[in-house]
Amino acid sequence: MKKFMDKDFLLSTETAATLFHDYAAKQPIIDYHCHINPREIAENRKFDNITQVWLGGDHYKWRLMRSAGVDEKYITGDASDREKFQKWAEVLSKAVGNPLLHWSHLELQRYFGYDGVLNGNTAEEVWQLCNKKLAEPGMSVRGLIRQSGVEVICTTDDPIDSLEWHKMLAKDKSFETKVYPAWRPDKAMNIEKPDFADYIAKLSEVSGVKIASFADLKKALSARMDFFGEMNCRVSDHALEYVYFSPASDSEIEDIFAKKMNGGDVTADEVTRYKTMFMLFCGKEYSRRGWVMQLHYGTKRDNNTLQYKKLGPDTGYDCINNYAPSSLTADFLNALECEKALPKTIIYSLNPHDNQAIDTILGCFQSSEAVSKIQHGSAWWFNDHKTGMREQLISLGNLGYLAGFVGMLTDSRSFLSYPRHEYFRRILCGFFGELAENGEYPDDIETLGGIVSDISYGNAKRYFNF
Amino acid sequence: MKKFMDKDFLLSTETAATLFHDYAAKQPIIDYHCHINPREIAENRKFDNITQVWLGGDHYKWRLMRSAGVDEKYITGDASDREKFQKWAEVLSKAVGNPLLHWSHLELQRYFGYDGVLNGNTAEEVWQLCNKKLAEPGMSVRGLIRQSGVEVICTTDDPIDSLEWHKMLAKDKSFETKVYPAWRPDKAMNIEKPDFADYIAKLSEVSGVKIASFADLKKALSARMDFFGEMNCRVSDHALEYVYFSPASDSEIEDIFAKKMNGGDVTADEVTRYKTMFMLFCGKEYSRRGWVMQLHYGTKRDNNTLQYKKLGPDTGYDCINNYAPSSLTADFLNALECEKALPKTIIYSLNPHDNQAIDTILGCFQSSEAVSKIQHGSAWWFNDHKTGMREQLISLGNLGYLAGFVGMLTDSRSFLSYPRHEYFRRILCGFFGELAENGEYPDDIETLGGIVSDISYGNAKRYFNF
Amino acid sequence: MKKFMDKDFLLSTETAATLFHDYAAKQPIIDYHCHINPREIAENRKFDNITQVWLGGDHYKWRLMRSAGVDEKYITGDASDREKFQKWAEVLSKAVGNPLLHWSHLELQRYFGYDGVLNGNTAEEVWQLCNKKLAEPGMSVRGLIRQSGVEVICTTDDPIDSLEWHKMLAKDKSFETKVYPAWRPDKAMNIEKPDFADYIAKLSEVSGVKIASFADLKKALSARMDFFGEMNCRVSDHALEYVYFSPASDSEIEDIFAKKMNGGDVTADEVTRYKTMFMLFCGKEYSRRGWVMQLHYGTKRDNNTLQYKKLGPDTGYDCINNYAPSSLTADFLNALECEKALPKTIIYSLNPHDNQAIDTILGCFQSSEAVSKIQHGSAWWFNDHKTGMREQLISLGNLGYLAGFVGMLTDSRSFLSYPRHEYFRRILCGFFGELAENGEYPDDIETLGGIVSDISYGNAKRYFNF
Repeated sequence: MKKFMDKDFLLSTETAATLFHDYAAKQPIIDYHCHINPREIAENRKFDNITQVWLGGDHYKWRLMRSAGVDEKYITGDASDREKFQKWAEVLSKAVGNPLLHWSHLELQRYFGYDGVLNGNTAEEVWQLCNKKLAEPGMSVRGLIRQSGVEVICTTDDPIDSLEWHKMLAKDKSFETKVYPAWRPDKAMNIEKPDFADYIAKLSEVSGVKIASFADLKKALSARMDFFGEMNCRVSDHALEYVYFSPASDSEIEDIFAKKMNGGDVTADEVTRYKTMFMLFCGKEYSRRGWVMQLHYGTKRDNNTLQYKKLGPDTGYDCINNYAPSSLTADFLNALECEKALPKTIIYSLNPHDNQAIDTILGCFQSSEAVSKIQHGSAWWFNDHKTGMREQLISLGNLGYLAGFVGMLTDSRSFLSYPRHEYFRRILCGFFGELAENGEYPDDIETLGGIVSDISYGNAKRYFNF
Repeated sequence: MKKFMDKDFLLSTETAATLFHDYAAKQPIIDYHCHINPREIAENRKFDNITQVWLGGDHYKWRLMRSAGVDEKYITGDASDREKFQKWAEVLSKAVGNPLLHWSHLELQRYFGYDGVLNGNTAEEVWQLCNKKLAEPGMSVRGLIRQSGVEVICTTDDPIDSLEWHKMLAKDKSFETKVYPAWRPDKAMNIEKPDFADYIAKLSEVSGVKIASFADLKKALSARMDFFGEMNCRVSDHALEYVYFSPASDSEIEDIFAKKMNGGDVTADEVTRYKTMFMLFCGKEYSRRGWVMQLHYGTKRDNNTLQYKKLGPDTGYDCINNYAPSSLTADFLNALECEKALPKTIIYSLNPHDNQAIDTILGCFQSSEAVSKIQHGSAWWFNDHKTGMREQLISLGNLGYLAGFVGMLTDSRSFLSYPRHEYFRRILCGFFGELAENGEYPDDIETLGGIVSDISYGNAKRYFNF
Repeated sequence: MKKFMDKDFLLSTETAATLFHDYAAKQPIIDYHCHINPREIAENRKFDNITQVWLGGDHYKWRLMRSAGVDEKYITGDASDREKFQKWAEVLSKAVGNPLLHWSHLELQRYFGYDGVLNGNTAEEVWQLCNKKLAEPGMSVRGLIRQSGVEVICTTDDPIDSLEWHKMLAKDKSFETKVYPAWRPDKAMNIEKPDFADYIAKLSEVSGVKIASFADLKKALSARMDFFGEMNCRVSDHALEYVYFSPASDSEIEDIFAKKMNGGDVTADEVTRYKTMFMLFCGKEYSRRGWVMQLHYGTKRDNNTLQYKKLGPDTGYDCINNYAPSSLTADFLNALECEKALPKTIIYSLNPHDNQAIDTILGCFQSSEAVSKIQHGSAWWFNDHKTGMREQLISLGNLGYLAGFVGMLTDSRSFLSYPRHEYFRRILCGFFGELAENGEYPDDIETLGGIVSDISYGNAKRYFNF
């Protein structure tokens, strides 16, 4: 019987423990994909209480509470912070098999020094402890980032964003963590959305490029990429339903664009063709600039219309979309490769059953431009638990070069979420420990430790050129 | 080396053994979904021999025998019961990795007190033992149910069924197990079938509603639901190819219905629209009545035409259908939710690779109406083995609130199949034991034991309101 | 800590070790599906150095090197054999979790007596050792086959092949391993390919049948099947995108065939109908001849156009195609069954998530013609690692009759690849050992050992009638 989440949590062998404590744990964090607010870093926000940090915007926790039958009043409603915390503690304590149990206790251990178990009975004690601790100066946003050993953060930013907080942070010598923007131009791709034309108007204004055509749009985006590049952006991010590949001519795309801008309805087929050509344009730009292209797909968003109207997006109403033809992903990457314009690319699917197809696609487009130029992104969101992470590692190991993997990201909105890197590293070391102790990998701790360090930190540093 | 299927079968840790023996094993059974014949309960049928019970209608066993190259004569043909039993014993003894090996031996242990291994050599001994035992009064249908600790049974019934045996059982104070009907209106949905119009005619007669339109059909079904409700029906059941979502207007559906009733051919697209609107109607009715809606999909039935003509349906010729767009399932549930008419729902897919998509869909529609109002149904049919059950539990744990799960059902035609609940509970306890002993859940046997009891029994009791 | 790949590699229990050493290891090899060149057997080729054997044509190794960022110069380029070997050794030593690490070391152990670990530092020592060993007379192609205990080899051959090397080998009494052709008529099926008409012309010439229609094509193929049959062919092989089922009339197919032969473009729908009818024709022929039909699907080939133009097919640019409707597979087999013309069939998918659907399809078409007449082929290519093989075995065990499985094949172009049979057998014994020691199968080493021997060798011998 191992103690609940002790120092050797998820480290089932001695080799795993050595790999984690002597190698993985010592590495800084590069969080190359997250959704935290740069303003809160610039302003060094502080938190009043643990509910604010934990339950203020975390839709993972909200979903679990709803699944347990908790009334929305105690989730996003007008119950007091203390009441919400109580409900959360009660649900969490019964969340057997759920990663939130682990993440939450890692956070309690690392940031608050609490080694007990949070449940209905201990909620008051934990509430007091956390809130007292949050009042300390080291528990501001910057303090949390600093004590987590974070070297680089990439936020997620729209092309029309002014990046003013990034500018401020770049100038601020008192904060050593680098905070870079990441380029996420989904709104310029989602031509089916009712607010597309409005968005294009804003982009026109911000970029100073009059946008009367798709060619103009490309110019405007290019200008904004120049600006993002000046602000140290080195990575893009695209949320796709699946990887599109329905190529079309320039004139067809101009017709579709014009139709939409003139208030017409675009068909599903037109949307797919537009998105294909949009993505091919983006890929070429990234290749030219040395940026990394992140493609993630396999979700269907905002499935509960009533709640969407009340709470907006990213409130816990998304699900896995299991339609993602691997053939189109291969065709899309090939089209870029044929123009010698395939950038470094990271592919993620929310459907864990895409792992193997993705891992075999990677192998078709690798080259000596980078170690594992085409990457299979870490298990995240619906998959960032032991099962999902192990399966991603096992599949990548079976079918690719796991030693070249750029590893974990938080994808988080929370400043307490860095222990997810620790969680990932424990799972990684657990897996490698098993392989070594089963005689499936040589008992060579130095080589394995080097690979662990690379996957935890070194590979990302080299890959993104941070 | 653990002994074959001893008292700690599938219980790999001490915690697992404690959870099973002290908590799970003590719970009654609520078998909320099965296919046993209420008449046989009412008449308290007795069996002449073990072949009759085991091989009379169990297509799981038939498939295994066919796969082992056994001639159909010894399966559904005219060989003697003793010969059939011999063949079965020989095949079973080599069925390494197959759940039938476990189910069969659990049945031999629990009902016949046989602790050996059934094979070609022991077949005669087991044959004698079982048949002698079957002659005892406690081995009638009611005796078997009683000694299995079954509190509630929901059979599966057609809207046109008279429910006469349920009536009789409801009045019979000598039998304490509740036997309720479940509503399965597939024949009213399957408009593509040649006998659709005939079925509608029968429904018209039974309901006393003249059915000249889809509106009439809805009235007739509603009347029958009233009747089923009076007979304590609280749960429905739908076999779908996948969850349809192609909404259409009332007039379109009336046209499709009229076309079919007038002998016309309905197109695939018309079928899908009809079924969508049929299912939306049903969902709203269930919501209003507080019934549970069971949706199961992911099979393709009756794939061997020659054998279908000889033996009919449910004879071992079905397979997994891997087409089931998760996006449509989400859209269907959302359509009901938008009308505030989403009933409690249990979703099952025969394709185990749908687990994660289903578990993320659940989370979009939970509410405080019930703990885990939307459920991921237990692994069954092609998945009711250790692998399938563990994967369902792990996925639901990772992505949802496993503690709220309503647990196992037999889906069986056999009165000896209740040990499948035991099988499930052992797997559940085995999983929880691992989590606790690996330090992934607190070593808190009381909380875990409570969760085990709930999943075994309490959750179903509350969820179905039995 | 187990030593790296010692004698009990992958054998985690005592039962597993007994099963492997006392049963599996003693069985001969039937390699019923491979891609080795019969000419090299006939001529008894010798190799100059280990790079020639290992890296001359092995696209598995090439992919791994590319994924590690190795320049193509050291893969298929003009670097020296020694340089290529050095790069390979360096990459391999960091290939944690990849089956190439295991295969390569099994080959070093079995053929070269090297028990160390190949890496950058040991590369020179291994290079010298292997090359010295390769100069020995027992290390010719025939020597390698002989020492591997191979009883039967089925190569993969085009209908237009002269089979001259097979003829020669059949006459050569000095070589005891049987080398049979296998029939792979993909080029006559792939009507969408630009060189289809050219191929038909060649087939016409070789068969002596003037091919002016699809009916003629069938005659020509039939004639060639007669010839293959005389050369001891008993197995066919088809590479499909997925199993097609869009039946069409004779006259429709004749129109499609004529259109293509006259230089017209065939539509996607026409291609599918043609392929369906082509496959139904083949199936019937195989049934009549007692041949086994192998269907494998789930790949998308030649995804990197630039590299395809440089290096041709089978150079490491294929990926998993995740589109394969199980419903069509069932319909195709049923269509043959309805004509009582379903041959013994082995189904493989490169997508491991097809396992369960395949295993349930098998069960719909079994009969007493053979033990497990319809087989689920072994995990191969992208799946021939511990994960893939275990999952295939577990799924087949759960859903079918694993004891009737015909087991492993190499699918290889290399004469050193026979240890993959050993790898498979170790995984098989590891799995059975766990079942027995966990009490999930009786502790009956004789029965289990018999099943292991059958899956390793006896089942294939009986199934293919070798």
